[in-house]
Amino acid sequence: MTIPQEIDTPELMIDVDILDRNIERMASAVRARGLSLRPHAKTHKIPQIAVRQIAAGASGLTVATIGEAEVFAAAGVGDLFIAYPLWMSPQKAERLRRLSQTARIAVGVDSVEGATALGSGLGGAAGSTSVLVEVDSGHHRSGVHPEAVAPVAEAAARAGLEVAGVFTFPGHSYAPGMPVEAARQEQQALNRASEVLAAAGFDITCRSGGSTPTAMLTGNSAATEVRPGVYVFGDAQQLELGRCAAEDIALTVAATVVSHHATPADGPARFIIDAGSKVLGSDRPAWASGFGRLMDHPDARITALSEHHATVEWPDPGTAPAIGHRLRVIPNHVCLAMNLVDDVAVVSGGALVDRWVVAARGKNK
Amino acid sequence: MTIPQEIDTPELMIDVDILDRNIERMASAVRARGLSLRPHAKTHKIPQIAVRQIAAGASGLTVATIGEAEVFAAAGVGDLFIAYPLWMSPQKAERLRRLSQTARIAVGVDSVEGATALGSGLGGAAGSTSVLVEVDSGHHRSGVHPEAVAPVAEAAARAGLEVAGVFTFPGHSYAPGMPVEAARQEQQALNRASEVLAAAGFDITCRSGGSTPTAMLTGNSAATEVRPGVYVFGDAQQLELGRCAAEDIALTVAATVVSHHATPADGPARFIIDAGSKVLGSDRPAWASGFGRLMDHPDARITALSEHHATVEWPDPGTAPAIGHRLRVIPNHVCLAMNLVDDVAVVSGGALVDRWVVAARGKNK
Repeated sequence: MTIPQEIDTPELMIDVDILDRNIERMASAVRARGLSLRPHAKTHKIPQIAVRQIAAGASGLTVATIGEAEVFAAAGVGDLFIAYPLWMSPQKAERLRRLSQTARIAVGVDSVEGATALGSGLGGAAGSTSVLVEVDSGHHRSGVHPEAVAPVAEAAARAGLEVAGVFTFPGHSYAPGMPVEAARQEQQALNRASEVLAAAGFDITCRSGGSTPTAMLTGNSAATEVRPGVYVFGDAQQLELGRCAAEDIALTVAATVVSHHATPADGPARFIIDAGSKVLGSDRPAWASGFGRLMDHPDARITALSEHHATVEWPDPGTAPAIGHRLRVIPNHVCLAMNLVDDVAVVSGGALVDRWVVAARGKNK
Repeated sequence: MTIPQEIDTPELMIDVDILDRNIERMASAVRARGLSLRPHAKTHKIPQIAVRQIAAGASGLTVATIGEAEVFAAAGVGDLFIAYPLWMSPQKAERLRRLSQTARIAVGVDSVEGATALGSGLGGAAGSTSVLVEVDSGHHRSGVHPEAVAPVAEAAARAGLEVAGVFTFPGHSYAPGMPVEAARQEQQALNRASEVLAAAGFDITCRSGGSTPTAMLTGNSAATEVRPGVYVFGDAQQLELGRCAAEDIALTVAATVVSHHATPADGPARFIIDAGSKVLGSDRPAWASGFGRLMDHPDARITALSEHHATVEWPDPGTAPAIGHRLRVIPNHVCLAMNLVDDVAVVSGGALVDRWVVAARGKNK
């Protein structure tokens, strides 16, 4: 695909045809296994994409913050899960009370203290808000051990909240060779946590798993829903993990070659493009080949990144693009790239067809 | 400092008293050595801070993009250097022509192609725009070897641009033990590039060096001006490089403890705070102790970061802060953190006194 002339660089571009295909493929695969799909909207932060996900059959959305929930509730999404162990500051409590009047809200909890504060912060709105207890399935971030879910659920119930179920995020699936094992641990953790809650007298309806690497691997198993996010766009991490192909990448960053190094006699060509960490994000797992990939040039490597420069190594100096040439970059982690821009170019068949505002960008609270 | 009650987390806070002291100290030190100061405004992106820098004696500002230049020109800054080898797309050429009617503009060049396209893009405005030729002083990003500056300067002159001088960014100073050696290489590169241009018949007036790590080390030497950016705030990188002290840190991120891991019998406490890569940025050089530091808790380490979670290891489990406790985080790289938020809280003596809009946030083009 050539970059439309109207697009100046650096600029994020969404190929809407690939986006629609990704949305439909995940929806079909999840539906075929009898699971609910609740996509994580922190990846895209764009109401127009949320609408497409709901139209394809998503039961609601997952978000990370109250601010994201506010944006999507205002856009008409009526069922939102804030998959985060929120601590109820006075400001958050007031916003969450207001939000619960316009949408059905569930919140993550992973401590007695957090569940108690959530119920008391919500006050009269607690009855219309449900919680999912977060379980650690091996990522060792937030969440409690599956054996330790009952006291958290009991604190939530005492605080007047409905305990709807359990959830986990198998973040350790984001590493080579890990998706299958992480998906297994995820199912095991959800299963065991459900048994523990059932034994404690809870009648739960939701067992929610997550992540783009594991969502397609989830068998007929413990989960009742999945919460993948990145699948709408794909990114260089998913590509290098083998969870998507280059033709599934719906979001790229248009960039221009701005500088060339003098090429040594025996080395690769090295040049600079105008997409740096302020538009790509600087996530770079140890196993990644670099700070993103170049679309259509799988042999090139992005070896260094600063705020407005990326250094590209290009194996064959004879074919290196000249200064002024435009290229497309696949960010390592698309959730960070989307959070860096106010709007994105929407393209179809190589033509600019729309611009979408990243309405939930920067909604960190 | 306690975090003012009005501030919800996560939120960026500027201590304006420390900010003013940092601005004044750098201005005095640079003035005492007879150099001009042209601070890099990509660090803060805030007109109120630019005004303070100019009032303290800065001759103008450095920026990275035309968009940043537009914001600061609109705020009344009349002298701007875009320290980047811009490629003149039709869009950029039109914006730069317009900008050159409202402010004195200089642009970086590091190739014959770039200089030629800049002159032709500017057309009639070329005469009122000057260029500085970028020299590579060891960072190996953009810039040409000091011996190779003449053809670039000659192309700029042929294209109708005034060749005002040379500049370099010693980015390799951002590593332990490197600032002194990088500052030496920087001066050597500026010196040699000036000699080469003089031999080619250019009468240059500006030799511009850069970077917070080296700016205070620049002796009575080749440079006529310096372009530090980070010094206004300091950050965890500068702290760990020994280029600032904890009491010089003017920008921190207010965060709340939201989750605790079960503490093993023999290990440190581990807990989660609500400041992740979407508010701290995810830069983490190999030599850094972690993904930022905790203010007032030098022994704690931030060992993992995801979008809305940071994992903290706290050596003494007996003193670990409870869920709901608030802490201040020092980001690793403050330029990225500032680029993630729409506005910042301004505090003085522990009280919230103002809010400033990050007017140039996201101006990547």
